[in-house]
Amino acid sequence: MIRAMVHQVREVLIYLFLAVFYKATGTVKPYWRPGSNLSPDNDRAYCLSWRLGVETNNVRAWRTVPSECKEYIENYMTRGQYYHDLNFITNQISSYADEIALSNDGMDAWILDIDDTCISNIIYYRGKRYGCDPYDPLGFKSWAMKGECPAVPFMLGLFDRLVQSGFKVILLTGRDEETLGQATTDNLLSQGFIGYERIIFRTTAYKGQKAVTFKSEIRKQLVEEGYRIWGNVGDQWSDLQGEFTGNRTFKLPNPMYFVP
Amino acid sequence: MIRAMVHQVREVLIYLFLAVFYKATGTVKPYWRPGSNLSPDNDRAYCLSWRLGVETNNVRAWRTVPSECKEYIENYMTRGQYYHDLNFITNQISSYADEIALSNDGMDAWILDIDDTCISNIIYYRGKRYGCDPYDPLGFKSWAMKGECPAVPFMLGLFDRLVQSGFKVILLTGRDEETLGQATTDNLLSQGFIGYERIIFRTTAYKGQKAVTFKSEIRKQLVEEGYRIWGNVGDQWSDLQGEFTGNRTFKLPNPMYFVP
Repeated sequence: MIRAMVHQVREVLIYLFLAVFYKATGTVKPYWRPGSNLSPDNDRAYCLSWRLGVETNNVRAWRTVPSECKEYIENYMTRGQYYHDLNFITNQISSYADEIALSNDGMDAWILDIDDTCISNIIYYRGKRYGCDPYDPLGFKSWAMKGECPAVPFMLGLFDRLVQSGFKVILLTGRDEETLGQATTDNLLSQGFIGYERIIFRTTAYKGQKAVTFKSEIRKQLVEEGYRIWGNVGDQWSDLQGEFTGNRTFKLPNPMYFVP
Repeated sequence: MIRAMVHQVREVLIYLFLAVFYKATGTVKPYWRPGSNLSPDNDRAYCLSWRLGVETNNVRAWRTVPSECKEYIENYMTRGQYYHDLNFITNQISSYADEIALSNDGMDAWILDIDDTCISNIIYYRGKRYGCDPYDPLGFKSWAMKGECPAVPFMLGLFDRLVQSGFKVILLTGRDEETLGQATTDNLLSQGFIGYERIIFRTTAYKGQKAVTFKSEIRKQLVEEGYRIWGNVGDQWSDLQGEFTGNRTFKLPNPMYFVP
């Protein structure tokens, strides 16, 4: 904590110096100030840019969080902003859902991804340096088998609201049915996700397919069954792109890993 | 400036208090720390969430920047992070462009939007409280007529690189040809955007159409002419969605206004 204090105080002092410097030399640009090279915050600025790039789908197929961003991502995930972002986005989703006039045929559907959309892997990823370590399929599997993922903040509230509004909530996940089906169902139940219409895992038929292909195919089948997909919420762009994406998609933040 | 100093020092003191408080009461959560309600940074956290929502296309059809975010957006746009984000994303775009093997038929195309993609309206939006004031069509038109938009940082470098690599760079804008055509062409020239293949304005035939419809139609025509659209760069999601969007799209940051 002392280190963080010293860091913050130092930051303020350097800002003060910079402010006086810019004032004195008159090098403040009329609109933007390019050279932040003097700033001690270069890592933070870089990591902010990297995270924006990831969340906007500008940065794709990345394997690990840049190691210089470990502390930044840890802070983002655990010190409030991730929580704020989830609060904000779930409010947006609720407002959109509230505007929809549901029919009486029971075919108004809503799709939610599971990992880091309904339930969180943040505890696991803490042990993987918040995504700085490469993907570890066996490690992740044994974590998921435990069924100890906590609910993603605000998502249980959104889930309940959607169910109570009359949406048929369909959970769609790339998790393998055979090995993780039971543990996942139990995990969702223990976290209070009760009342969904259907939970769809990846079965052998879809093994090895990209998420965007598998999920598009499942959504196609749902639409063919007669479902109207009003909303589609996921933490990965591969949840939200492809075909039959739904009337509106919502990207939840996740700067820890990328699913192709 | 004194006010900013006092604010920063106060922030540090409150952080210190919070840190000691959390440590003493042991209320630090094992993974994320919800209640930032005590924090003086609530506005900033909210504005960060709002900006993320805008950039990820979760927040749509918004008319103005929330007024509590005026200072935040001003800081974002003028104090370095916007500049950092542009540096980061243009590097990403260059890396992608470098991997493309161009053919010899001269049909490898790249699409760039103009406003806040090639040339910047930040000086104008400073007078509109960085987007807190509602859209003012006449005001914007008279600004654009002046032809005084500076180049968006790093975008002239990217433009030159694309042209020199052999891409046919096509500028595609919702600006009205009749009223703004000459001023825009002059503005681009004065800023150094030289060597593009074509510049396509909105003509009378497309007046009143949504940007996504108009731009999709133009891209369709280009593809029918035989162009392969490798990249498509814009600051609005309406530049990047619809049909014939291109092999890869890149969203530049713009938290100041929304074009439907």
